[in-house]
Amino acid sequence: MSLWSLKWEQGTLVLLDQTKLPGSISYIRTTSYKEVASAIKVLAVRGAPAIGVAAAYAMVLAAREIGPSVSTKEDFDRAFHEAGSYLTSARPTAVNLAWAVGEMEKTADQFPLADFAGLTEMLEQRAEEIDEDDKSRCSAMADAGAALFSGMTHLHLLTHCNTGALATAGIGTAFGVIRRLHERGQVECVYADETRPLLQGARLTAMELRENHIPYKLITDSMAGAVMRSKGIDAVLTGADRITANGDGANKIGTYSLAVLARYHQIPFYLVAPFSTFDLSLSSGDQIPIEERTPDEVRTFQGVYAAPKDAPVYNPAFDVVPHELITGIITEKGVLRPPFRESIRKND
Amino acid sequence: MSLWSLKWEQGTLVLLDQTKLPGSISYIRTTSYKEVASAIKVLAVRGAPAIGVAAAYAMVLAAREIGPSVSTKEDFDRAFHEAGSYLTSARPTAVNLAWAVGEMEKTADQFPLADFAGLTEMLEQRAEEIDEDDKSRCSAMADAGAALFSGMTHLHLLTHCNTGALATAGIGTAFGVIRRLHERGQVECVYADETRPLLQGARLTAMELRENHIPYKLITDSMAGAVMRSKGIDAVLTGADRITANGDGANKIGTYSLAVLARYHQIPFYLVAPFSTFDLSLSSGDQIPIEERTPDEVRTFQGVYAAPKDAPVYNPAFDVVPHELITGIITEKGVLRPPFRESIRKND
Repeated sequence: MSLWSLKWEQGTLVLLDQTKLPGSISYIRTTSYKEVASAIKVLAVRGAPAIGVAAAYAMVLAAREIGPSVSTKEDFDRAFHEAGSYLTSARPTAVNLAWAVGEMEKTADQFPLADFAGLTEMLEQRAEEIDEDDKSRCSAMADAGAALFSGMTHLHLLTHCNTGALATAGIGTAFGVIRRLHERGQVECVYADETRPLLQGARLTAMELRENHIPYKLITDSMAGAVMRSKGIDAVLTGADRITANGDGANKIGTYSLAVLARYHQIPFYLVAPFSTFDLSLSSGDQIPIEERTPDEVRTFQGVYAAPKDAPVYNPAFDVVPHELITGIITEKGVLRPPFRESIRKND
Repeated sequence: MSLWSLKWEQGTLVLLDQTKLPGSISYIRTTSYKEVASAIKVLAVRGAPAIGVAAAYAMVLAAREIGPSVSTKEDFDRAFHEAGSYLTSARPTAVNLAWAVGEMEKTADQFPLADFAGLTEMLEQRAEEIDEDDKSRCSAMADAGAALFSGMTHLHLLTHCNTGALATAGIGTAFGVIRRLHERGQVECVYADETRPLLQGARLTAMELRENHIPYKLITDSMAGAVMRSKGIDAVLTGADRITANGDGANKIGTYSLAVLARYHQIPFYLVAPFSTFDLSLSSGDQIPIEERTPDEVRTFQGVYAAPKDAPVYNPAFDVVPHELITGIITEKGVLRPPFRESIRKND
């Protein structure tokens, strides 16, 4: 595929600067973990799976930065853990970030400081594994999701935010399912929510749909209800940023509204996410920390002020879909069905 | 009030150019009915009641333009009616426009062409009456709506699009109710949907809320569900562009989603509209023509592109709320309750 979110090149993490899309294609070459954290914070790299992979590589950079300045493994571990916390705090909601940091810490634990070459080599290997794993997980989710629509043609699907090659290391989560269905000639039209405030649907998903020659219509988020009422939508598919033990799922703001609308119109609503998105330490969605972002994201549109510059704003970046509104969760291990507490535990 | 949408000044209709708000305050002085139609088309003047009043004055301009060039009343009537159709076609959904044109035609019917001075004077008087009527209707709706919340304080209200002084000749429809409740100290917070694609909530309602010192938060349309779930919303109040005999109501795109969300959260959902918004010639909402506007409204804001320039778009300007999702319709004659077919007929 020609669109990609990140690449590891000779010890440097190259990120496509997604804040500039679709207007211009530019890359950020990061050589320190703090640069990666900044890129995550401003959403230059985004999408729960992609920021997990970015964080894994950032931990390789962190090890290289820390190694030369410490003399004991304890000092290394402390500094390495601090770097991990720094990365994790860049975006509090998506759990893939914390998961990848944890995986890298586990890997570092296995080596003494004396074997610093072996340590960094193994960290690099583990990061590349997480990267490769994400690709194959995307593919497995696409297959599992597409199987749900077996025998159906002329599908009308609705999606939110961006969940494709720009949000993962592979072909995507929800977008991967859509892409697979399109490859099989089953898709008639994808309705893509523009996804205010940051317009990932208009800026990124529209681009990916076009690149993959998938027929689509871009809509404002406010049109989703009218579209469900009049356009015969067969399913709503979105990604997720964190799924708790009971099957509640946090995702981009607006996903909860879609889930309620889908229920009212008796349309199946699916979350598509790999197991790295599951946080079984939380029993339900009300425990998920919801990031609130700057008011200017809502006051402006691509840098142009729409509202008064001092307009008070409520700007949560995510909302939580309660499990009772979810028809199924499409994972790399198959489609989980209610009761989710059980189906999640069985597959974890 | 210092914000106003239109003024009749010595035979000229002065319109606040709302496409330029909130960035700059500029006025359009119209001296021909076609100029008024253009202003309605581009949404320089907007809001169902305000475009009704604008159309009434535009018909005065039309009579002045037509009078000198015709020699029989039949020719006058034909040209006058054509001018009316031209105005009505500027925006097909809001019925106030057609209603005001019809009122002006009825007035013109009463005069011979020989009494052209009397004819134009009477048309001007009727337009001013429609203007004044709208003001008092707004006030009556505000009273009727506020009475629904009698004894309640710390109200959290949610509204969509713009329905205030910029959308009417008076204090507004839904906004008028909110303003009255605020005057009585009952409002804790108004959540204002930004209302994509044209952002009337961000650009206009935020301005009116600020001017009236009403505490508020601006949100993206996609946040309404999360706000209803977590912020204890007491009621959703919106305007309407056309209400049919069975109580179905067309309003700004996104209103239908709000009505479904309100129902799911057991929050009362009210339309606020004067009787000039009712179209009893239509038995249900599926007969209301829904205006589709240019794709660039969704691809851009203020000329800045968010989406690929060739992105296919679905851009209906309105959607229809079926009567079964409406708790009540607040009119100048009181609050109509289900069954609406009956309560509307009784009050018409």
